[in-house]
Amino acid sequence: MKVGILGTGPVGRALGHGFVTLGYETKLGAREAGNPKAAEWAAAHPGLGSAGTFSEAAAFGDVVVVATLGTVLPQVAAAAGPEHFAGKVVIDTTNPLDMSRGFPPGLAISGNDSGGETLQRALPDAFVVKAFNTMNNGLMFRPHFDGGPPAMMIAGNDAAAKATVTRLLADFGWPALDLGNITSARWLEAMCIAWCMVGVATGKWDHAFQMVHGTPAAPSVAD
Amino acid sequence: MKVGILGTGPVGRALGHGFVTLGYETKLGAREAGNPKAAEWAAAHPGLGSAGTFSEAAAFGDVVVVATLGTVLPQVAAAAGPEHFAGKVVIDTTNPLDMSRGFPPGLAISGNDSGGETLQRALPDAFVVKAFNTMNNGLMFRPHFDGGPPAMMIAGNDAAAKATVTRLLADFGWPALDLGNITSARWLEAMCIAWCMVGVATGKWDHAFQMVHGTPAAPSVAD
Repeated sequence: MKVGILGTGPVGRALGHGFVTLGYETKLGAREAGNPKAAEWAAAHPGLGSAGTFSEAAAFGDVVVVATLGTVLPQVAAAAGPEHFAGKVVIDTTNPLDMSRGFPPGLAISGNDSGGETLQRALPDAFVVKAFNTMNNGLMFRPHFDGGPPAMMIAGNDAAAKATVTRLLADFGWPALDLGNITSARWLEAMCIAWCMVGVATGKWDHAFQMVHGTPAAPSVAD
Repeated sequence: MKVGILGTGPVGRALGHGFVTLGYETKLGAREAGNPKAAEWAAAHPGLGSAGTFSEAAAFGDVVVVATLGTVLPQVAAAAGPEHFAGKVVIDTTNPLDMSRGFPPGLAISGNDSGGETLQRALPDAFVVKAFNTMNNGLMFRPHFDGGPPAMMIAGNDAAAKATVTRLLADFGWPALDLGNITSARWLEAMCIAWCMVGVATGKWDHAFQMVHGTPAAPSVAD
């Protein structure tokens, strides 16, 4: 299996490092040929790592990761060529951050839509799976959490694609938790903003959401 | 301090039980006088518990809890009389659930608005604090979690009101985590739907979100 990554920012590079470490040939794609960050990343990952354009990375990957800005997904899909994604698992790590009022951001796509749905519409023949959108890029590959990493919430329309992503996530060190079809990207992208607000509140950026289970006080308080 | 609660459903009754247990006079308000669920709850909480209308409960409380359907907040505020909330802390526990397509729900208010903001607009002289909207009602009062309850995320415009709610939450057994002004209700209400989807995925409904902190693999994978 080969991996194509669209986006040369910290998320793309961190995930690329993970895939190369796991032994996958990985091409980091930039909007323009000769992008220095992509070239630098490829040079730091000789053998399995390479650099290219969005189009070259999308064509290269059996699995394609989208790690661009989340506000330009249709443009990214058009630049990469939707035909290069047909039948492939596409991991959407993006968040449609609205930074027009500064930080913390809002969502540029919300309500009855999401970035994940936007990408799925732009790539109708691909199997988009939302993942990696509610934690710091430094924690994406084999992080240490006391008690182990929490389950990463994912969403997508195709069960087989989610099974593939679940296996990849396990190799990255994360259990997966399937939140249903791609419309659940609405809630996961909103959780990214909640994640930012937690960072603002605590001054820490090493956090992730975990599900914990409780038991009611006895007797039941609902009566 | 006296407490008024608007809404006789499981959330209103569970929180009312908590407030009475903590020693607060608590009036459970229903849309109509003589509501049998409110009367039954009051009879089960003699001494401190009483029943009334939305208007009577709002006028009664020094703190007012809104625990109605989240899709009718302007109507609830109008029925209760906005003047009864002036200068008071109002705890908004609601979620604007869109059940028009069945379960799991969507959000009837989303995007650049939220139920919390809707309630704040309907009660301009009150200090609305979003809380209690991302866990099962059975866990709202002094639940048991291994390691203790997670921090409950809250949001609101007024720091003093959030400090009051933080003290009340501590008595209910929950640490609080301040996610900023009431616009963060957008993210907290979306997290309610994520909470529902986790329930669908796991078949369990005793979960809550906790923040956990990780450390990157060494060396940093962002390079």
